Amino acid sequence: MAARSLVTLLSDFGTSDPYVGAMKGALLQAAPRAVIVDITHDIPPQNVMAAAFVLWQASIRFPPGTLHVGVVDPGVGTERKILAAQLGGQLYLVPDNGLLSLVAQHVPMERLVVVRNSAYLPGGAASMTFHGRDLFAPVAGHILSGVDLARLGPQPQTFKALELPAPVEQQGELIGQVIYVDRFGNLVSNLSRRLLQQRWRDLAALRVYLAGRPIGPLQGAYGFVAPGEPLALINSMDLVEVAVNHGNAAAVLGQGVGGEVRILERHGGR
Amino acid sequence: MAARSLVTLLSDFGTSDPYVGAMKGALLQAAPRAVIVDITHDIPPQNVMAAAFVLWQASIRFPPGTLHVGVVDPGVGTERKILAAQLGGQLYLVPDNGLLSLVAQHVPMERLVVVRNSAYLPGGAASMTFHGRDLFAPVAGHILSGVDLARLGPQPQTFKALELPAPVEQQGELIGQVIYVDRFGNLVSNLSRRLLQQRWRDLAALRVYLAGRPIGPLQGAYGFVAPGEPLALINSMDLVEVAVNHGNAAAVLGQGVGGEVRILERHGGR
Amino acid sequence: MAARSLVTLLSDFGTSDPYVGAMKGALLQAAPRAVIVDITHDIPPQNVMAAAFVLWQASIRFPPGTLHVGVVDPGVGTERKILAAQLGGQLYLVPDNGLLSLVAQHVPMERLVVVRNSAYLPGGAASMTFHGRDLFAPVAGHILSGVDLARLGPQPQTFKALELPAPVEQQGELIGQVIYVDRFGNLVSNLSRRLLQQRWRDLAALRVYLAGRPIGPLQGAYGFVAPGEPLALINSMDLVEVAVNHGNAAAVLGQGVGGEVRILERHGGR
Repeated sequence: MAARSLVTLLSDFGTSDPYVGAMKGALLQAAPRAVIVDITHDIPPQNVMAAAFVLWQASIRFPPGTLHVGVVDPGVGTERKILAAQLGGQLYLVPDNGLLSLVAQHVPMERLVVVRNSAYLPGGAASMTFHGRDLFAPVAGHILSGVDLARLGPQPQTFKALELPAPVEQQGELIGQVIYVDRFGNLVSNLSRRLLQQRWRDLAALRVYLAGRPIGPLQGAYGFVAPGEPLALINSMDLVEVAVNHGNAAAVLGQGVGGEVRILERHGGR
Repeated sequence: MAARSLVTLLSDFGTSDPYVGAMKGALLQAAPRAVIVDITHDIPPQNVMAAAFVLWQASIRFPPGTLHVGVVDPGVGTERKILAAQLGGQLYLVPDNGLLSLVAQHVPMERLVVVRNSAYLPGGAASMTFHGRDLFAPVAGHILSGVDLARLGPQPQTFKALELPAPVEQQGELIGQVIYVDRFGNLVSNLSRRLLQQRWRDLAALRVYLAGRPIGPLQGAYGFVAPGEPLALINSMDLVEVAVNHGNAAAVLGQGVGGEVRILERHGGR
Repeated sequence: MAARSLVTLLSDFGTSDPYVGAMKGALLQAAPRAVIVDITHDIPPQNVMAAAFVLWQASIRFPPGTLHVGVVDPGVGTERKILAAQLGGQLYLVPDNGLLSLVAQHVPMERLVVVRNSAYLPGGAASMTFHGRDLFAPVAGHILSGVDLARLGPQPQTFKALELPAPVEQQGELIGQVIYVDRFGNLVSNLSRRLLQQRWRDLAALRVYLAGRPIGPLQGAYGFVAPGEPLALINSMDLVEVAVNHGNAAAVLGQGVGGEVRILERHGGR
C-alpha cells in the first residue's frame, strides 16, 4: 500500500446537490487517507454511453493502481450487478451496465469480479436509491485498503457491454460513427489512427465525409482551416474528429452521436 | 492533530470567478497541510435555506473531526456574527444566519462559540465583501491547527435559525412541506422515516398527497412506476420525496419549496 | 522538496468532458505526490483576458512556491512558446499568449524562461491539440520534482502581454476601464485603491461614473444602498467595482469589459 491512495470519481450527480459531498464523505470514512480526484460529475443524467467514453479517455491517463469509481447508474435499486475490475493496471468499480465498455474494448482486461461477498458489503442500511454513497464508497474503501479483488466476489461469465457499432470496411472505404460530442460541439468518431494506419500508408491522401458531406483531408490542427470552416483531424485521443474551427460542429453540421463518418482514399485529381 | 486535516467548502461563489481559488489559497496559507474537499460552490446565490440543507446532508457523512466551512452569506459586511461549532463530532465554521439550522435540528450540539477573540482574527486588512477569504479561511486555519473552539470566543445565548415549518399531525394525518428541490426536480420534504415509524406501524398502508394531489403509496425505488409517472418514496436521506420516474417532478407537478406534503393511512379498500 | 507539492489548474476545458481528468491523470503520473487544487475550468472558451484576471487574483493568495498551471490556449499547435516563471514567490507555467499579463503587471517578476530544453519535454508523442495533457503536465511534473526553472530553457527577450488600456488622468479625473465581469454581473475596473490614494486624500469625496452615468460615491459594502440600486465600492481585490445591490450590474447598466469608469472629486455641494 502506498502512503496515498488515489481514487477518481465520475458521476452524473451534478455539483449543486448534497450527493457528491455525501459520497466523498462516505469514501473518506471508509478510506481516511484517500486522495480524491474528480473526473466529472457533469455526465448528462443517465447517459451511460457518454460516461463510458469519458471514463475510458480520462482513466487511462492515471498512474497504475488508481481506483476509478464510476456511478452513472440508471438501474440503481434493480438487480444490476456491481463490477470490480483491473484493466491495463487501472482499477475500476462500476455498475454492470456498460460503463466499462469502452475501456474494455481498448485495454486488456486483467481481472473482473462481481462484488457480492457480504463480508465487504454494508448491512441493511444501504438505500435503494443512492448506491454511490452506500455501496460503492464502502467497497472502494476496502479496495483502497488493499483487499484483493478476488475476495470481493466471483468472476462473472459475462458483463454488460454497450451495443457499439464497429467500424466496417466496404468497397475500400472505412465507415465509422460519431461516439461522443464534447462541450465545444466537436464530433469524435470511433475511427482510430491505428485503424487508418493498418488500412492505408499515406494518411495525407485520405478524405473524410460526415453523413455524406465532404469535410476534406485530415488536418494537423484546428487552425489549419479558416474560422467557421469544418475540418477533420486525428485528435488528442488518436480518434478521427470532425470539428469547426472556432465553431460548434454539432450545431453547424447538424450531427451528433451515431452520425456516419466515412473515410476513403483520393485517387488522382485533387 | 492528524497528519491530514480534512476541511470541506460550501459556498455560492460559483466556479468561474477567482473567488473559490482565492479562498482555497488563503486556506492553504493558513493551514498548509489541509486537505480541501469541495462540497459545492453552486448553491443558488444567497439561498441560505438550500445551503443549510446541503450542508446538513453532506457534512454528516464525513469522518468525525472534519471541519466544514460554509460561506453563503448575504449579510457579509454587516454585524452578523461568525459561529464555530461542534455537532455530532463534526466541526463547523459558518455565518450566524441560519446556515446551521438543519444540522442543529438533527444532530446533537456539542459546542458553540461566537468567533470574536482578536488573537485569532486577522487585523485591519479584512475586506468587507469577502469574508470567506479574509476571515473564514484564517480562522479555519487556526481550528485545523488544533486551537480549541472555546478559545475563539464566548458561547452565545442563542443563534439564528431559519424559520422552518415543523411537520404537524392533524386528524390522523401528517402534514409537512417540501424543503429542498434537487437538480433533477425531486421534491424533498421534511417528513422523515422515523416520524412515520413513530406514528404508523405499516408504512405500506400510507398514501402521499402533494398540494392536495394524490401521489400514491411509498414506493421502493424510482423504477417501481412507469417512466413519466409521479411517485413517492423514502429517499436516501430517509426523507419522504415526491419524484417523477425519469422526469422532473418540480416542473411536471408545478411544486417547489414550501409545497404541502400530506400523508395518511388508507383504511380498507384500495 | 516539501512532502506535498501544491499545484493549481486553471483552464477553459469545462468540466463535462474527459479533458480535465486526462490532464490530472497525466500530472499525477508525472508528479505522484502532487496536491492538485482546481482554480477553475470554466473560463469562457479561449478568453485569455478573463483567464489572466482570474489567474492573477487567485494565484497571489496561495502559499509561496505553489505552481500555477494555466491552459487557456487558442494558439495550441502553433508556434507560440510555453513560459515558466516565478513572480512574487509563486511559480507559473503558461502559454506565451498574455495569460501572465495581469500577474506581471502587479507582482515583481523574479524569473522567466521559455520552456525549450528537450531533456524536459516529451518526445514525439505529444498531440498538437492537447498540450495541457501532453506538454504542460509533464513539464509541471519536472518543476514539482525540483528542477530549477533555468534548466528548462533560456530567458526570453520579451513575452506577450495583453494590450490593456492603462488608467489615465485627465483634467483632474481618473479614467479607467472595466476589465472583468464576474458571474453576478459585478463590473470590476482597473482602478486600484492605491491609485486613488496616490491622487486623492479623501476617498469619501470621490464620485464614480460608468460610461457617463453617475453611480455615486464609494460605498462601504453592497448593502449600503437599497436592493436594485447601483453602487460603486472598492472591492475585495482593492479595485473599484460597479455593482447593483442584489442585482446584475452588467445587465442592468448595459456595460461590460471595456466600459469606461471615471472618477472625480466632488467640489462643494452634495
